[in-house]
Parts: sequence; structure tokens; C-alpha cells
Amino acid sequence: MDNQHLSALLEQMTLEEKIAQMLQLVVSYFVGSEEDGRITGPMESLGITEETVNQVGSILGLGGAAKVIQVQQTHLKNDRLGIPMIFMADIIHGYKTIFPIPLAIGCSWDQELAEQSAAIAAKESAVSGLHVTFAPMVDLVRDARWGRVMESTGEDPYLNSLFARAFVRGFQGEDLTNDVSRVAACVKHFAAYGAGEGGREYNTVDLSERQLREYYLPAYKAALDEGCELVMTSFNTVHGSPATGNRALMRDLLRTEWGFDGVLISDWGAVIELIAHGVAEDEAEAAYLAVQAGVDIEMMTSCYVKHLPELVRKGKINESLIDEAVLRILNLKNNLGLFENPFRGADPEAEREIVYCDEHRAVSRELASNSCVLPLQPEQRIALIGPFAHSKDILGPWSWMGAEEDITPLDTAIQAIIPPANMLIAEGSDIDTITEKQWQEAIEIARKSDVIVLALGESSHMSGEGGSRADIALPEAQLQLITHLRTLDKPMVAILFNGRPLDLHGVHDQVDAVLEAWFPGSEGACAITDILYGEVNPSGRLSMSFPYAVGQVPVYYNHYNTGRPKKESEPDNRYASKYLDIPNEPLFPFGYGLSYTEFKYGEMMLSEEVITSDCSLQITTTITNTGKREGEEVVQLYIRDISGEVVRPMKELKSFSKVLLQPGESKKVSFTVTEEQLRYHHSDLSYSSDAGEFAVFIGSNSRDVVERRFRLLK
Amino acid sequence: MDNQHLSALLEQMTLEEKIAQMLQLVVSYFVGSEEDGRITGPMESLGITEETVNQVGSILGLGGAAKVIQVQQTHLKNDRLGIPMIFMADIIHGYKTIFPIPLAIGCSWDQELAEQSAAIAAKESAVSGLHVTFAPMVDLVRDARWGRVMESTGEDPYLNSLFARAFVRGFQGEDLTNDVSRVAACVKHFAAYGAGEGGREYNTVDLSERQLREYYLPAYKAALDEGCELVMTSFNTVHGSPATGNRALMRDLLRTEWGFDGVLISDWGAVIELIAHGVAEDEAEAAYLAVQAGVDIEMMTSCYVKHLPELVRKGKINESLIDEAVLRILNLKNNLGLFENPFRGADPEAEREIVYCDEHRAVSRELASNSCVLPLQPEQRIALIGPFAHSKDILGPWSWMGAEEDITPLDTAIQAIIPPANMLIAEGSDIDTITEKQWQEAIEIARKSDVIVLALGESSHMSGEGGSRADIALPEAQLQLITHLRTLDKPMVAILFNGRPLDLHGVHDQVDAVLEAWFPGSEGACAITDILYGEVNPSGRLSMSFPYAVGQVPVYYNHYNTGRPKKESEPDNRYASKYLDIPNEPLFPFGYGLSYTEFKYGEMMLSEEVITSDCSLQITTTITNTGKREGEEVVQLYIRDISGEVVRPMKELKSFSKVLLQPGESKKVSFTVTEEQLRYHHSDLSYSSDAGEFAVFIGSNSRDVVERRFRLLK
Repeated sequence: MDNQHLSALLEQMTLEEKIAQMLQLVVSYFVGSEEDGRITGPMESLGITEETVNQVGSILGLGGAAKVIQVQQTHLKNDRLGIPMIFMADIIHGYKTIFPIPLAIGCSWDQELAEQSAAIAAKESAVSGLHVTFAPMVDLVRDARWGRVMESTGEDPYLNSLFARAFVRGFQGEDLTNDVSRVAACVKHFAAYGAGEGGREYNTVDLSERQLREYYLPAYKAALDEGCELVMTSFNTVHGSPATGNRALMRDLLRTEWGFDGVLISDWGAVIELIAHGVAEDEAEAAYLAVQAGVDIEMMTSCYVKHLPELVRKGKINESLIDEAVLRILNLKNNLGLFENPFRGADPEAEREIVYCDEHRAVSRELASNSCVLPLQPEQRIALIGPFAHSKDILGPWSWMGAEEDITPLDTAIQAIIPPANMLIAEGSDIDTITEKQWQEAIEIARKSDVIVLALGESSHMSGEGGSRADIALPEAQLQLITHLRTLDKPMVAILFNGRPLDLHGVHDQVDAVLEAWFPGSEGACAITDILYGEVNPSGRLSMSFPYAVGQVPVYYNHYNTGRPKKESEPDNRYASKYLDIPNEPLFPFGYGLSYTEFKYGEMMLSEEVITSDCSLQITTTITNTGKREGEEVVQLYIRDISGEVVRPMKELKSFSKVLLQPGESKKVSFTVTEEQLRYHHSDLSYSSDAGEFAVFIGSNSRDVVERRFRLLK
Repeated sequence: MDNQHLSALLEQMTLEEKIAQMLQLVVSYFVGSEEDGRITGPMESLGITEETVNQVGSILGLGGAAKVIQVQQTHLKNDRLGIPMIFMADIIHGYKTIFPIPLAIGCSWDQELAEQSAAIAAKESAVSGLHVTFAPMVDLVRDARWGRVMESTGEDPYLNSLFARAFVRGFQGEDLTNDVSRVAACVKHFAAYGAGEGGREYNTVDLSERQLREYYLPAYKAALDEGCELVMTSFNTVHGSPATGNRALMRDLLRTEWGFDGVLISDWGAVIELIAHGVAEDEAEAAYLAVQAGVDIEMMTSCYVKHLPELVRKGKINESLIDEAVLRILNLKNNLGLFENPFRGADPEAEREIVYCDEHRAVSRELASNSCVLPLQPEQRIALIGPFAHSKDILGPWSWMGAEEDITPLDTAIQAIIPPANMLIAEGSDIDTITEKQWQEAIEIARKSDVIVLALGESSHMSGEGGSRADIALPEAQLQLITHLRTLDKPMVAILFNGRPLDLHGVHDQVDAVLEAWFPGSEGACAITDILYGEVNPSGRLSMSFPYAVGQVPVYYNHYNTGRPKKESEPDNRYASKYLDIPNEPLFPFGYGLSYTEFKYGEMMLSEEVITSDCSLQITTTITNTGKREGEEVVQLYIRDISGEVVRPMKELKSFSKVLLQPGESKKVSFTVTEEQLRYHHSDLSYSSDAGEFAVFIGSNSRDVVERRFRLLK
């Protein structure tokens, strides 16, 4: 449909029809549609009529081609103008083929695999009838207490931006309108949802405008630069105003400054929550604030449909505001090709072939292998112990269509490749509790084995939305299990299933190796088995720091120096920026991860000592695999601006390269540094670089680096 | 000296003489002055000459009338123009008569006693030759990990502002020039030093301009409104610029917007630390940034004296900037009457009578009694156990002249009032360690006693500057001691000596009563004894929340509601702003404290349901002492703006009244609420109130309140 037709369609719509486009409801309002009508219970609770439901613009959380086709058909019959609905859902790390959680994907440092995972998620979603996914979530995270860190790729704005782009490319492809195996992406949560105070879910966010722009906004912007169709508002406040009613953030920054003209959708209930936030006295004011801010779709509350008509008729809101919003929604429908084909990719037959197919599962397995961090080697008789030895709870939060009955648990995956006599199994403990019988049984089988393999972790409900924890250690029961088994003095290996960086005291200091498997998705158990038995050499690198203790959060690598940095040369200086009882450094830093082989870094060579806007810098080093196994190293390049107009991070990731090396092989790795990479937000919020000295670092993680200096001339 | 003479003096000064006024050095540069000259070591380390030292404007950390007179005399001989030095020092909670730490004073809710403590500190300091104290510290604090919370009066901007004013009044009196028993006050640390990330000393601060103005700035402003002569810069960044070089904060806000024309002094070394912060490339740039920002005195580094002359001669800095700064310093000297009397109050003879006199110690005892929070009753045979049973380490950090040899420890204080046979003593443990012998001995004496009184806590070096802790529990050794003694099943009472709110798990749930004594100062042990044996009924109320766990920080009463507040009616709602493992509420809230008696609150009466700018609201309630002991209750009034232009705190303390009641007595307590108290900073930073609904709460702490509503019409 061309623009003229879209405008004409808008002209035909009544005010109520327009506003109904701005409402999104969950599937329960529609499931009854197969038969005689709607479910009245939910309608009453929202105070809306069947007429509104008939005109609704989009629907949330219905998947499955046949059902989608049926609901759309009914809708088209009931809607006076026959405007198709958009079907949206939370496809976060896979549709039915579940990939590792995004934090684990971040640890792969592999944009191609990330893009592939999103493309597969899109393909499975699209054939099942979906049009839009509420992903990628690109919130920068620094506080491991927060449950939703599992949904982010980590703490670095640059890495998050790369993954944001990769996910958007994977979901949307190159031609969203014609490629019906793709879905529109919705970047979220705009903005800075990851900075909630105390790591507590939905909590207040307060930061300076400069900090917001420097650290938190880049990944959202990257997604939009990649063409992301939608944006979702966040639940938190930004500068004292809840994002969903924040005109400065949404209209001035997102719409005007960034030029975003796609659909802005509220998070679930976020419009009505303006009342609880205490910036709206009632639903009418909540509707007023959100629509003024530029929120096009209200998800799951009815402030818009109940109050916008009157606000427009009373002249409090100009109808042009409504028209703008509705035109953006119609535009999205048009971009999805829904006017021509309201069922789009939905295809019950293809669905059965495509969804959870072997090819997709193989990619999930590969991504899981690439996401695991830290390794071990043994191939002896093992005692597999722990609540995750036989658990199918390894998909992680946000695995809507993921079915546990399809999951291979770890014990089964291992049994498939070793002689049965070579593995003994005991649960050892539950997630939160341990009985004497459990640990006695564990000790018994451990005695008979060469190696103890512990499968430990958090249940999936311990992270994800609403999953904030004030204590980020493993549950006490599992720490006790480790203590009991430690008495045997046998080699111990811990495989961890979890959604957040944990405080690993009581684990890493008790066992011989730790494999951080995160929630590894559908094929996680097989991927772990590949690593356990040496089929795959782990190459994952942490994209979020592991705190030394919860009392250290927030802890992140790209912090400022402070005026009194702690110096190794002055360990007893009280008057340094430090804690009395723990180090400043995290237990495992950003970028960290081991391999079965070892890599040696050659000298770092700089092509120039001075660069300008026109003359870039080549940085070269040689990496050698000095071990006995093929392996991949993630070579990381960081930069520090020694003196800025405002304080500057100690290190900022600017580039990296994942290099595959055979035993004994050497490869040259080159990076280019340009003036553009040296820009930052100044105190007046201008974005530019300053002449002066810079440090450049190369290394295998953010801590272990070599350093050289260069100058920028302007 | 009149202004004309001051200007004339300035005109006579060479550029180097002017800049030397802008330097402050510690006493070690001067002590040799009794004999033949200066100590050359420190001079060399700063790269300064004897000539500069001769011209220096002020000196830090020398006390004692005779010494001060001698150093000043020598200086006057050596300084060409005979300009007297100012003698400054950190008199934080008393000179030699040490009062409870400021956080404890905050818990007294008693401005008169606070003022009296500052007046006594001034009197002792002044007679010992000091002219300026680096106090009050009024940083708002929310993170108990930070060591310097002990120096603040707490988490509330209103309460902190009242104490800021009280301290300034106490230090400066009404006529600083003529009343030589007073000293000039220096409010610190400007600004927001208390908001360091992760509670880590000197760490980055980032918050929005609105948050800064709403919560953090009011107490500094209150001190200045009270006439505070000096301001000290903070170590941290504000909006990305270290405060000491932050022109927007210092020149635009402090000088221009607030009109402050007193002396702005850097904190120790904070000018040179602009290099470590990464905003200055070298000392010259550090000097440039600080002087441009409006910092008049550089404490303990020599960037100014080494580089300002050249910067002025090269035309990079206008000499008028230097003249302004020097004139402010000369003005301060003049306000102190130093041109007429360079020795001011210094009087070796009076010093011996006044310093640490009985009268002062009595006030310290009274203030300590008023600062202790939470009570107990028993009067039987006690076993006094714990590392603080006989410790003299009860003065707390920043007790420069406080002498432990003068201190009465708790065991001695108790022995003075009970029959010797009624107390047995054992140390039980050290602060950080416990031996079997120690706890066996403790159990032995506990067995023979009716009540176990535990004297536990942090050593004073565990809080204060450089005293950040990631773990805020009592040291493990002391928790073990409690566990051992718990097995006896005898009444246990814990008296806590500490500088920060602690996580009291393992204490409050194991003992029958807890008395929070903080570091109670010179007369602390006697004050505690008064409370233990019922001479004094405790009336202290917490001015900072006690976190439930370290993973809960920051936690404070005046937080926002969020869009999804946790509701008691929906304990199982996952999608609320909460932690999975602990409550949202602190263990003990702001304003909390018990008494030996009980108070009953009558109905809350409002004079109006609607108020305007011209018509205020009277709120009245009746408090009855329903117990058997005389006691004081702190009746607290909080307000909540139900719907604002930005989010508003759940409660804000607006007023309180400390009421003394005999058993059975009732008193009417009245508060007035005016439109002015309903103002706040809007998103455009304007300060005004909005029409609409407000809740008003009265109660005995920030949690246990009754609520009524009223409206503001505009």
C-alpha cells in the first residue's frame, strides 16, 4: 500500500477506530473467537467493549500458525475497515529452538552466530504466525543482583551495540516486507532499565544526562541505525520522569534528535503505572502523558481507549497527535506487508518442518559451545552430582515456546557418548535444600569415581524479570554439597547453570575447574558434553564482570580512575579508593575466559605515534597457539583517553578479533584506530575527540593487557 | 580592617605573595620554626621554597595555644607584609572533649545539643589557637558500605539541613569577629561526596542535576544560609567533572547562583588529583582548572604556587581571578579579626582550664545519652563480655585531640555504680578474632550471671575516611561469640560501638535487646551506663536506615514508589519491585528507636482539607505516655505529594517535635504545613509546588504512621 492509500485509510477511520489501533491486548481477549465471541471477563477488567476488541490494532503472545490465521480471519470479519492485526511476542533467545540466554550469547563475542540465532528465531516465529518480536533487549547492565541481566549481552556499550545490530539484522533481514521468514524487531527497554537502584526490579534510575548518553544510549541507537522497526519504553524513571511519560526522552530525544519514526510501544502496563509512579493522578492523565511523550501503542491497559476520545473532543489533545501515532502503526503494518497478506508467513504445514528442526538445533548447540566460559579436561570415570545433573530447567527465562519435554538433560547427553559404567549419578541436593541422604549418596558415588562433575546453579525463576536477588551466591545447600564432597580430595569440576554473574566464593576456590554454562538453551547439555569431553575447545569470554562479593556491586571494567586510585605499589595506603575487606577488582573481569590451549601475545606494533583526523593508526600483534589443541582466542583492543574534558573510562573496548589457531600456529592480528573512535560526550553533551595522549591496550581480557601510547593531534 | 585597607594590602602584594596565600600546608612545614628554620624534606617533596613557606596563607592541623602563638609569631616576622596565617583543623565531633560521632548526633534529633557540642568544640579549639574547623560535614548518605557515613547526620535532606545550621551556629556564634571563643565553619564536601558508587571511598558519583538539587544540595545550602564562612570541595566527580575543577558546580552554581563569596578550599590534595581523575594532563592544567572553577585555597599540594605565576604572566589566567581569590582569603582573616589580633583566642592558661573541663564532658555525656538508639532494662548480676568491654576505642574516627588515656571504658563506668560482685568481665573475642580460650572464659562467667551484656562493634579504623567495607556485618568472630553464648539461654543484651548502620543479622535475632551506642565519645561509657541502669531513658531515633543486608544498599526511607510497588496484599506477585530473597524494607527504618516507656498516638486532626499559598494547615495530635517511666518521644511529620510533575518521594520528613512526658501524661503536639514545604525541583529544575493531593503522616518513625489527605489549591 502506498502512502496515499495509507492516508486515505486513516481518513476513513473514526476517532475510536484510530485509538483502538493504539491498544495491544493479550491472546485471552481473542481465544474465544473460534466460537461465538469474546471472553467477557478480561474485557470487564479493562473496562472495554467488544467493539473495541474488534478494532484492536495488535495482539500479544499468540503463536502457532493455525491459531494465528483463525484469529486474524475473525478479526478481519469483525473490523469495519478490515485492518489486519499485528501479532507480537517476546521471542528473546529463540522461539522453540531455544538458544543460550543473551548474556551467554554476549560471552560468545560472535556476531555472526548471534545474527544466525535471531534469524532462526525469526524464521520459526514467522512461520508460526508472528510479525514482531520484543527483542533485542540491549540494556547495559552493571549490577548482578538484577534478574534481567540474563537478557542483556553485558556491561559494554560497544559490544552491546554490535550485538544489537546483529540481532536486528537477524530478526529483520534485508527486506522485511517481502521476506516473510523475518519479523520486525523492537529494541528495548528505552532507556536505561539496566541501571535500577540496588539491582532491584523496576526500581528508580537516576544518572546524569552525560552518563546516559555515554554508556546507556549507544546500544539502542545502534539498533535503530540498523533499521529496527519498533522501540519499547522502560518501566523506570529517567531524570525523575517515568520513561513511558517522559516527553524529553521520547519526543525530544528519540523522535526529534534521533529521527525515529517507527512505532513506540509501552512495556506491559507501563502507561497505567504512571499513576503508581506518582506523575499521573488518574488514567486520563496517564493517557495524556504517554501520548504527549509519543507512545503509539499502550500494552495491556486501557487508558488510551477509555480516555483519549474525550481528551481529543475536549481539545486537551490535538487529534493530529493521534493521527501521527496511528499512521506509524499503519506504516508498520504496511512494512510487514499485512495489507496485502494479513497472514504473512503463517503456514501450519511449513511450521511443522521448520520449527525446532535439526538444523536450528545444531546452531543452538554451536552457540551454546561458544558461550560457555572457563574449561576443564578429564576423561575418566565421573560422578555427576547436583540439582542440574538431570534437570531440564536449562532453557532460561523467556523461553515461551521452549518445551522442557524436548530437552536432553546433562546426564542423558553424557550417557550418549561414554560407556555406561563410566558415569554414576546423584542429585546431591536440590536447588535450595539438601538432606543428609542426598549428600551421603553423593559421597558414595563420588568415592567410586575418578572425577566429580558438579552440575549446579540457579533455577530459571531465580533470574529473569522479577528475579532480583540481594544475595548472588549459589544457594547455601549447593555450597554445602561442595563442602561435603571436598572432603574426598578428588578432582572436582563445577558446571554452572545460571542467569547472572554469581559470587563464586565457595565454588571457584573449592573445585579444580568451573565451566560457566549459563542457561544454555535447547542443546545446552550436548554443547556442555562436547566441551567436557574435548570435542569443543571453549572460547567464550565474559561480557559482564563477576563480582568479588555482592557488596562490590556495581563493578565493571570501564570505570573511571577516581582521584585516588588504588595502587599495587601502595597496598597499605588507607586513603585510596578501595574497600577494607575485598579487592577493587571483580573475581573474573570483563573479557575473561580460558581455553584448553594457551596463547602467547607478540610485541604490539603501532604504525604511528601521532594520529590526526585524516591519518589513522594501525596496531598489529602476533598471536601464537603455544598449546597442544586447536583453539580460538578473542584478541581484545581497549583504549584510554589519558586526560579528557570530563573524566574518561580506564579502558574502553574498541575492537576485537576472534582468531582460530592450530597448535603451534601464529597469526598476525591488525586493528585500525581512527579519530572517530576517540570521541565522547563532553560536559556540554557535544560529541567529539580532544587532542592529547591516549593509551592503547591489547590483551586476552580487560585485565591482562600490554599497553602503548599515542597522541591525537588536531 | 576596612575594605579600603584590605584592597590597599592586596595592591602591595607581589603575584607570588598573593599565590602563597592560596596555599595551605600542614604543620610539619613549620614545627622547626622554633629553632633555625624550616624542615627541608617536605618542601622538597612539594618543590617549594622557604620563601613560599614564609608567605603561606594558612596552616592545617596545628593545635595548642603556645605552639600556635609561636608559629604565628615566627611567621609574622618572616612574612614581608606581616599577614597573619589562619590556623585550620578537622574538628569534627569535638576538640578534646569528644562528642558522639555525627551520625550518632543525628540520631539525637536534638539541634540544641548539637549546637552546644559545636560551641564547645569551638571554644576548646579557639582557646587552643585554631581559627577554622573543617566542619560540618553534611553529605547526604544512603550507602552503609561507605566509611564516612559516621561523619554525616544521615539520609534525610531536611534533618541534615537542620543539623548543618545548628553546627554552623555552634561553631561561629553570632559575632565571629569579636567572639574569640568561636571558629569559622567550613561546610563540606561540596558536592554529593556521599553518593560514591558502591559505597567505595572516593569513587565516582553520577546523578542527575535534579536529584542533586533535590536531595544532596539542600544541607550545604542551609549551612551557607546560616552564614558558614568556608566551603570545601569534594573528591568525587559531579556530572563527569571532579568537583575541585568543576566550573559549573563551583563558579556557576555556588558562586553565581547561590552568591557564596567566602573561601572555597580544596580537600587534601584534591587539586593535584585532577590529574589522576584524567581531566588535567599536568599540575599546571590542574591549577588552571581549579582556579578557573573558583577554588581559593589549594590544600597540601603545590600546583598553584608552582604554576599560577607563569599562567598569569603568559596571559592564560587573568590576574583578576587571583585577586578575587586572595581578597576572599584576606576577607576571611579580617572576619576572624586576625589583622588586629593574629593570636585571636589562643591562650595557654585558659586552655588548661577550658579544654576537656567537667562542664564540657557533661554535655558530651548528655549528647551521648540522647544519641543511643534502642533499649533494655535489667538490673541484675551481669557478665560483661566482648572486645568493647574494656576498650577505650570509643571516640570514633576524627578525634584528633581526643586522648584514649582520658577515656573511661565501659567496665569501669559500670563498676563505679554497682557492687563489685555484681559484674564479671571477659573479653570474649577480639574485634576480628576469637580463640577457644576466649569464648570458654566468656561462657564460664556468663554461667554465673543473670544477664549477659555484650559490648561489640567495629574498631574505629573500620569506618571513617578510607573505611569502606563491602561486608557490613559485625566481624565473624563476634557473631561466633554470640552463637556460643546463645547456648546458655540467658538474657542477652548487645551494646554496639560502630560508625555505620550494620547488617544486624546474627545479632538482633539472637539477643533480647540491642543498644546502638555508635562511637559515643569521651563520656560514652558513662552515658551507656546511665541507660543500662535506667538513669536515662533512651530517646535516640535513627537518622539512617539499617539495611536488611548489604545486597539491599542503597536503602533509604525517602525513595520513590516505582511503577510497580510491592504490595502487602500481593505477596506472591513476582512482577513487583522487590528482591526474591529479602524484604524491600530495611531492618530498622529511618526515625526508628524504642524507649523504656510506651507512647500512644491520638487521632490526627487537620484544620483544613484544602490549603492555598495564603492559608496554612494545622495538624494536631495528642501523645500519651502509657508506660511507667518518664520518657521522650520524637513525633515525626512526613508528607507525600501524591502526583507530581516528576516522581516524588514516598515520604519526606517535614517537621518533628521531641516531647517529654511523665507516666500517664498527655500532650498536644501541633505542626503547621505551608505551601512552601510542598515545593520541589521540577524537570526544568524550577522550584515550586503543584496543586493537587498530598498525604500527611504522623508517627514515631518513618514506617509506623497514620495517614490523612489534604489538597493544595493554586
